[in-house]
Amino acid sequence: MRLHELAAFLEARYEGEADYEVSGIAALEKAQAQHLSFVASEKYLKQLAKTAAGIVVLSPALNEHFSGNKILIDNPYLAYARLSALFATRVQQVEGIHPTATVADTATIGDKVSIGPNCVVAEGAVIGANCELYAGCYVGERVEIGDDCLLYPNVTLYHDVKLGSQCLIHSGTVIGSDGFGFAPTAGAWTKIHQIGSVHIGNKVEIGSNCSIDRGALENTLIADNVIIDNLVHIAHNVQIGEGTAIAGCVGIAGSAVIGKNCTVAGMVAINGHIEIADNTHFHGGTIVTRGNREGGQFASTAPMMPVKDWQKNSVRYRQLEKWVERIQALEKAQKQNDK
Amino acid sequence: MRLHELAAFLEARYEGEADYEVSGIAALEKAQAQHLSFVASEKYLKQLAKTAAGIVVLSPALNEHFSGNKILIDNPYLAYARLSALFATRVQQVEGIHPTATVADTATIGDKVSIGPNCVVAEGAVIGANCELYAGCYVGERVEIGDDCLLYPNVTLYHDVKLGSQCLIHSGTVIGSDGFGFAPTAGAWTKIHQIGSVHIGNKVEIGSNCSIDRGALENTLIADNVIIDNLVHIAHNVQIGEGTAIAGCVGIAGSAVIGKNCTVAGMVAINGHIEIADNTHFHGGTIVTRGNREGGQFASTAPMMPVKDWQKNSVRYRQLEKWVERIQALEKAQKQNDK
Amino acid sequence: MRLHELAAFLEARYEGEADYEVSGIAALEKAQAQHLSFVASEKYLKQLAKTAAGIVVLSPALNEHFSGNKILIDNPYLAYARLSALFATRVQQVEGIHPTATVADTATIGDKVSIGPNCVVAEGAVIGANCELYAGCYVGERVEIGDDCLLYPNVTLYHDVKLGSQCLIHSGTVIGSDGFGFAPTAGAWTKIHQIGSVHIGNKVEIGSNCSIDRGALENTLIADNVIIDNLVHIAHNVQIGEGTAIAGCVGIAGSAVIGKNCTVAGMVAINGHIEIADNTHFHGGTIVTRGNREGGQFASTAPMMPVKDWQKNSVRYRQLEKWVERIQALEKAQKQNDK
Repeated sequence: MRLHELAAFLEARYEGEADYEVSGIAALEKAQAQHLSFVASEKYLKQLAKTAAGIVVLSPALNEHFSGNKILIDNPYLAYARLSALFATRVQQVEGIHPTATVADTATIGDKVSIGPNCVVAEGAVIGANCELYAGCYVGERVEIGDDCLLYPNVTLYHDVKLGSQCLIHSGTVIGSDGFGFAPTAGAWTKIHQIGSVHIGNKVEIGSNCSIDRGALENTLIADNVIIDNLVHIAHNVQIGEGTAIAGCVGIAGSAVIGKNCTVAGMVAINGHIEIADNTHFHGGTIVTRGNREGGQFASTAPMMPVKDWQKNSVRYRQLEKWVERIQALEKAQKQNDK
Repeated sequence: MRLHELAAFLEARYEGEADYEVSGIAALEKAQAQHLSFVASEKYLKQLAKTAAGIVVLSPALNEHFSGNKILIDNPYLAYARLSALFATRVQQVEGIHPTATVADTATIGDKVSIGPNCVVAEGAVIGANCELYAGCYVGERVEIGDDCLLYPNVTLYHDVKLGSQCLIHSGTVIGSDGFGFAPTAGAWTKIHQIGSVHIGNKVEIGSNCSIDRGALENTLIADNVIIDNLVHIAHNVQIGEGTAIAGCVGIAGSAVIGKNCTVAGMVAINGHIEIADNTHFHGGTIVTRGNREGGQFASTAPMMPVKDWQKNSVRYRQLEKWVERIQALEKAQKQNDK
Repeated sequence: MRLHELAAFLEARYEGEADYEVSGIAALEKAQAQHLSFVASEKYLKQLAKTAAGIVVLSPALNEHFSGNKILIDNPYLAYARLSALFATRVQQVEGIHPTATVADTATIGDKVSIGPNCVVAEGAVIGANCELYAGCYVGERVEIGDDCLLYPNVTLYHDVKLGSQCLIHSGTVIGSDGFGFAPTAGAWTKIHQIGSVHIGNKVEIGSNCSIDRGALENTLIADNVIIDNLVHIAHNVQIGEGTAIAGCVGIAGSAVIGKNCTVAGMVAINGHIEIADNTHFHGGTIVTRGNREGGQFASTAPMMPVKDWQKNSVRYRQLEKWVERIQALEKAQKQNDK
């Protein structure tokens, strides 16, 4: 890729040798002459001064700080994201249905679809145009997948699941398994069949080995532009609002409703049947026991300590109520003294 | 389904139009004329008053609160669970062995079994009557599966695993992977081959993407009527007692013994080599470091706070032992004063 | 296996009936005449006194405590680990490419490799000698796998992933899925294509249903002799040093660098962009928010309590800063009094 082509792709201004060619992207401190790099913020001016990158993407405000080949654009980090597509290493899968795939006669397959080895597409399923299903994906009965979706190997979509367009699902992820619903029955459990499904919007990306359960009576709902990392558990009837980002190892219990544009950091657990406002941000490891009415930043974890301190402080934490009572007693005694 | 049929199925009394027909189940506030609904407890009397449901299941004690078509039964929530089976949307898989499946000659396949596309059944495996294995399941050497089990796509059972009857295993779940056992050896690790297996009782349901490890010398044991949600990790030689329920994202370390009829909420971590009494209930996110002799409710998480408060309180928690010492000094000084 | 053969295998001294034969391994208290057992430490002398084991492995220092057939060796636990291989129950998979596997013409397959049913090996992949791939494994384009690796069913390796020699990967594990990288874009997210890969060293064992993401620009790196349990999430550009052990349900955020010979207990969450020193040990459930310069033991969890106490203490924890202020006020008042 040449400088002028990259700038044209971004619809941005460039300075330098128009035909300068790069073959990869690298961070400022690692980049060589054959690399494109970028300055995400002013924090990186030191690295910029020393970089060997062949082309740098930076904001016009920082123009004076770099004299080499450059692309000037307002949001260089976003520009980097867009440029990364040009250097992606994924191999497009071969169009058509692989001979080892099992596709039901009643399934509807869109134009230019790739269905990889050992995929199974069950009765009544509908797969939109330009979808790529890698090997071993299972698409259950009556599933609907929009256009331009990408399913990596061994994704499982249970019956009746709906996926919008431009979704990307990573390997091992299961969508539509039964919600965890049982009626207690004298030391045993009677299964509540999960009659709802899972409806997922457009431009949703879901990481590897996630589990998203179908609803008990209504559907589990994931709105447009939601992004979900790996090993995330989403229980039945959860609703996740547009643009919300959920990091790895998060668990969301049944019927929780998460607002729009929230960020949920890693290993957060969200209680069932609560409502989280738009623009709420949970720090890593937060145990979210109640809902909120207004966005904001929340956390719940105890601080990390050397084990020796942790052992002592843990004992004190277990006695906290008692120590508070002793403070109150001291205050009372002091008041008596003051009289 | 007609009112009189539903009542007959439940062996319950009904009032209203015997031939009234419904086609689905819905919650009271969402139900329309074509829906069956139910009143799980008195808390829902308000919703009952306004419901448009065609048929309502409720306890005889609430009979006066609803004048429409109704089924009267003592435990309406359990009745709902039982009725949900009649409205289930899952498609029964076609009987027989799919031509793309690989089944060893020495495997024993019961009557009316369905083995889906790309399943593999290894040497000496035994699959009971009426089992359904969806596509891509792997059944290792000498595995034994009881009657009436359902395995959703891409379940993996390692060699020698035993599953009782009427078990349901969701997609991506792995049973029988090696326990995490190694002998430290000068900066490296010597693997301890895991010679035990996993034995699972009857009527066990396991969610999607769970991992249940085989035992080191003896077997990992999961008793009858245990229910397990998604993304649960069960280490080698764990034992789980009858009727215990384990929610999503739980991790149970090696050789932990969990009693009967316990409930383990989401994201709980249970230490290895401890014993948990029957009827123990852990709140979500609890880190269970010790066993107990008597059941009860336990929790360990710190409370959620706005990040601003959390930062200040975290500093104080790190100093807790010191503050306790200062309270003690104040008490001592006060005693001196009192003399 | 006979006593003299077992001793020869360990290159250790034995005493007793040279031809005494055992057929299995068991713990001291469970072992019968047909079992080999071992004494891991002096703590087990009571069990040793009562054991019915046919052969016992113990350290020369404990020789006088057992008069039966025995093998004398300095590290009996390590000896047990080594002996466990002789009693392993896994069935070696048949050499060759199963007819249902799909192997690209441009793939290179080493000597004595077993590629199981429904495996897919994509263009340009290289698989070393003596590897066994169980059913349903996916090996992406240009993947390189060293010699003597074992992949259990349904493992997914994305394009360009590199695996050293003598690695063992359990079922459902996904290596090379995209790192969670997006540029925020007005309520939506622009994907940052993940151009790096995952490079894994030699003698690495990874449990079931783990997710290891490829790097954004450079590679995610896992060094030799690392062992990883089940359901572990490793984000993009993480680096894990030699000999480090990571237990189940751990999550490691992007660009974290973990040193050598660390142990990370279950359900630990490690923040992104931090550095953890060699020989660091995290207790179960620790939320690791900062790096450290020196190894040691760390923990962060609040202690487990009966729910009744937990509720009260939680209220006090939320007010901790305020109670500290009240202690300070008492101290000030006391100082005034003292004047």
